Amino acid sequence: MISKELLAVARGDLRAELVFRGGRVFDAFNGVFVETDLAVHQGRIAGMGDYEGETVVDCQGKYLIPGFIDAHVHLESSMMTPDQFSGLLLSRGTTAVVADPHELANVYGMHAVDYLLGAAERIPLDLFVMLPSCVPATEMETAGAVLEAEDLEPRMGADRVLGLGEMMNFPGVIQGDDRVLAKLEMADRYRKPLDGHMDTTDRNSFNAYAAAGIEANHECTTPEAARLNLENGLRLMIREGTATKNLEALLPVVNEFNLSQCMFCTDDRHPDHIRHEGHIDYMVRRSISLGIRPEWAIRMASLNAAQFFGLKDRGALQPGKLADMLVVSDLERLEIDQVYKSGVLMAEHGEYTGTVPESIPLPEGMKVGLNARPITREDLVLDTDRPVLPVIGIIPNEVVTRHEEVAGAAVNMEDFRKIVVVERHHASGNVGVGLIRGFDFRNGAIGSTIAHDSHNIVLAGDNDEDILTAFEELNRIRGGLVVVSGGKVLAELPLPIGGLLSDRPYEEVEEALEKLRLAVESLGDRGRFDPFMTLAFMALPVIPELKITDRGMFDVMAFRHLDQ
Amino acid sequence: MISKELLAVARGDLRAELVFRGGRVFDAFNGVFVETDLAVHQGRIAGMGDYEGETVVDCQGKYLIPGFIDAHVHLESSMMTPDQFSGLLLSRGTTAVVADPHELANVYGMHAVDYLLGAAERIPLDLFVMLPSCVPATEMETAGAVLEAEDLEPRMGADRVLGLGEMMNFPGVIQGDDRVLAKLEMADRYRKPLDGHMDTTDRNSFNAYAAAGIEANHECTTPEAARLNLENGLRLMIREGTATKNLEALLPVVNEFNLSQCMFCTDDRHPDHIRHEGHIDYMVRRSISLGIRPEWAIRMASLNAAQFFGLKDRGALQPGKLADMLVVSDLERLEIDQVYKSGVLMAEHGEYTGTVPESIPLPEGMKVGLNARPITREDLVLDTDRPVLPVIGIIPNEVVTRHEEVAGAAVNMEDFRKIVVVERHHASGNVGVGLIRGFDFRNGAIGSTIAHDSHNIVLAGDNDEDILTAFEELNRIRGGLVVVSGGKVLAELPLPIGGLLSDRPYEEVEEALEKLRLAVESLGDRGRFDPFMTLAFMALPVIPELKITDRGMFDVMAFRHLDQ
Repeated sequence: MISKELLAVARGDLRAELVFRGGRVFDAFNGVFVETDLAVHQGRIAGMGDYEGETVVDCQGKYLIPGFIDAHVHLESSMMTPDQFSGLLLSRGTTAVVADPHELANVYGMHAVDYLLGAAERIPLDLFVMLPSCVPATEMETAGAVLEAEDLEPRMGADRVLGLGEMMNFPGVIQGDDRVLAKLEMADRYRKPLDGHMDTTDRNSFNAYAAAGIEANHECTTPEAARLNLENGLRLMIREGTATKNLEALLPVVNEFNLSQCMFCTDDRHPDHIRHEGHIDYMVRRSISLGIRPEWAIRMASLNAAQFFGLKDRGALQPGKLADMLVVSDLERLEIDQVYKSGVLMAEHGEYTGTVPESIPLPEGMKVGLNARPITREDLVLDTDRPVLPVIGIIPNEVVTRHEEVAGAAVNMEDFRKIVVVERHHASGNVGVGLIRGFDFRNGAIGSTIAHDSHNIVLAGDNDEDILTAFEELNRIRGGLVVVSGGKVLAELPLPIGGLLSDRPYEEVEEALEKLRLAVESLGDRGRFDPFMTLAFMALPVIPELKITDRGMFDVMAFRHLDQ
Repeated sequence: MISKELLAVARGDLRAELVFRGGRVFDAFNGVFVETDLAVHQGRIAGMGDYEGETVVDCQGKYLIPGFIDAHVHLESSMMTPDQFSGLLLSRGTTAVVADPHELANVYGMHAVDYLLGAAERIPLDLFVMLPSCVPATEMETAGAVLEAEDLEPRMGADRVLGLGEMMNFPGVIQGDDRVLAKLEMADRYRKPLDGHMDTTDRNSFNAYAAAGIEANHECTTPEAARLNLENGLRLMIREGTATKNLEALLPVVNEFNLSQCMFCTDDRHPDHIRHEGHIDYMVRRSISLGIRPEWAIRMASLNAAQFFGLKDRGALQPGKLADMLVVSDLERLEIDQVYKSGVLMAEHGEYTGTVPESIPLPEGMKVGLNARPITREDLVLDTDRPVLPVIGIIPNEVVTRHEEVAGAAVNMEDFRKIVVVERHHASGNVGVGLIRGFDFRNGAIGSTIAHDSHNIVLAGDNDEDILTAFEELNRIRGGLVVVSGGKVLAELPLPIGGLLSDRPYEEVEEALEKLRLAVESLGDRGRFDPFMTLAFMALPVIPELKITDRGMFDVMAFRHLDQ
């Protein structure tokens, strides 16, 4: 509905509720700052020009810019519920996110989508949803759900559902797999965007991927891939996550011609990084420090995403749009003094000042905890009588691994650790056991229910007793992260929502993460890499070279499980 | 449906139907030309790279660019049926148009929309429709139809209907008129674009117009208005019509930041101009000659309109999109050698070579001819006993007029002509009679059924007999243009479709227009301006200063009819 009152304010016939006086307002379309008043009424922008307001905010010497939009994020990586996520992101100037509940959906299927859609109605952050396209991520592991086109379709028409999320199964797209194409065609029938996920410099792959209708991609890591991605008409989502950082590598690709096609996203970002380094605001700040004009960086952080996703009500400080805006005192350093969401002050100087939203009710289908068959020492036996055993070689701070080998007779728990994946969705009793090299901790075990993308229970340790204790503790706390030594739990972070999200405030999450870090350090970890983040990617069978699933060690290059 | 065959061609696993070899292919996203092959299959682009084709087109030294899109056009100004319009535009490199049947709809209401939608299925040109938002244009005249939101809505969901056409009633928008807002809200419910029509440098007007959701505007004539238009988030449609030419004035506003927000349109362009000067191709050529980079001009002529209107299948030479493309031998001069529509050759060196489409059936509601009550000499009497009579003062080549006056006793047919508007939709018998000054022709009358926007019969002459003859002839030929002298018809162009469109090939239309020009010349017209085009705007009561409707002389500044 068009507000007649808003029109009256715009015309100058009615006093605005709120006027920002004398700031430099970002004109997101011409790329300049205009020194003018800005009137806000009923949560929306009424206009720039000379306006009188019931409340006047002095903005002399300050800049007004639109709130930031994260074009692709898995909120699961924050380990926070949407209400906590909302406050943290608003404190950083992000006023809208396009979230793909890929992780929760691998546990709970479409209940995860309904959870986010329900949460979106209760939090001040504007949360939009892309339907997860790849549940499960592969056929090589056991996830909690299988989502086909017909499972997704009932939610595709929802207002807050913007499209189909990252299509990671790019081989399936390129080869024309029927089940994959059915999902693309379904989303296209709703005229909603199709998000991609492919990193290659192979022209033919991009041609086929684009020909199938994929419209965006956040997976490019090299300038060559990014240029080819743009050439093929896919929007370039430049990503700066916690594990995967592409901003510096990709910014040189952005030019005056393709600027409108580029946007920012975080994909996966941990809560401590968001809190201390920042979110999209960090990307804007870092871009400016790398020589990008502030106007360009702000546009990639706001308008471009809004236009791509058809979010007509945001992305620029323009009459009729939501008054999602940031008051900035230093543009080059992007010092954000205040954050307004729909005209309401939500944060000052990085601290959330908004109301604390009600907690988000869980759909019935998400009240189920872990469902793993109990394991015993017998499940953890490795056949060291074999002449040669495969070993996952950790490359610090990478999600790829080396495929190494060791003679059965040479296996020891000084150089290696056992790695164990226990299926936890259907109590199938599937247990994969193997060897991994590169962890520093000793006399203990670590365990996690964050294990991309099926999120089975993954454990690593140098003795079976601690591995079993870690397994039992994870079951007791309904999932999370745990460090065990000598049969005792040294530290833990319970993640009772799907084994992925905490139900506590983000300060507590951060504190628990720090205690986990100290606990592994006490076991000899040298801090060369984050052991839990490494653990989280060891069960992802699409990333080379050697991984492990609940069905055993997996040779990614040969795309098959190894006999053991 | 995604074509698996197209994917196979893209991958390189299947030979393409058509390969354009060795040309410089426009990368519409990065803004560069890439020397590469381009594969086309099933009418769509399969990819750039190394490809083999069943047919190979040698493009060495040539440029491949996307077909042009006219972002806003009234095909009625071409006076041609869609089949003829299609061939003429394709010969000029325009492969898609966004047409607003505002003129035909003022005669036939929604039947005009159905006519275009039906035609679109039969012609090779891709014709999209914006629903006419302002029928009638004003309350001050009698049109053939009245279209409210509820009349428009049944067609808003149609695939080829892209949105709501130019909202000329900007005062209604700004003041929050209920019937106007209802139309905007209706289109917004369908998530379709709302096109505007306003030329002002008043900030508050733009603020209210944008706050109501208007998204584009082709009416800006000054750089100041255009900049303000962009600042308020409205896409800038730069227009170059036959009467209204804004290209040169507005190009300086386009910069690297707002480039993606700008597009080209013709609005109203006569057939001879299209044929001899060009269409969107002319705008591209002229822009380049004015110093705009060809890459920028091409983007405004293609991709930007496609993105604005959500036409995902065109606007760039990108895998999956329609193979609507131009082979250009000289980029600076934009010499278009060949035009392909969906991979089919349609024109070479400016000549249409495509198939001639079947003629377009008229909807029942459009088979009605003129419906004017006969007029007699008594209807044409002017009260010269009055002390002072108002006179429309023609300003050559402008649509605005001067409000002049003459003493009743001083009225003569040397200096003045009678101007007469006869209502022709409902046989109401409404006749407006007044004086006009500025026509050169003598001893005769001219008449037309093209009279913006209600398209009543408008006649001008220096004697009643010729005016009556012109009226009768127009009725006989079911509308058109006519020149009469001494009771004889000297020349005419029948426009039997709504009094607006010819049913003849465009060569014949052009020939008839030339004969009309020679006929008025034989009556003393000095060619200072086009008398028919001037006549067509004398009954448009929204353009200052003095106009005439079927209800009499109309003072635009006071917005009321004058007593006579």
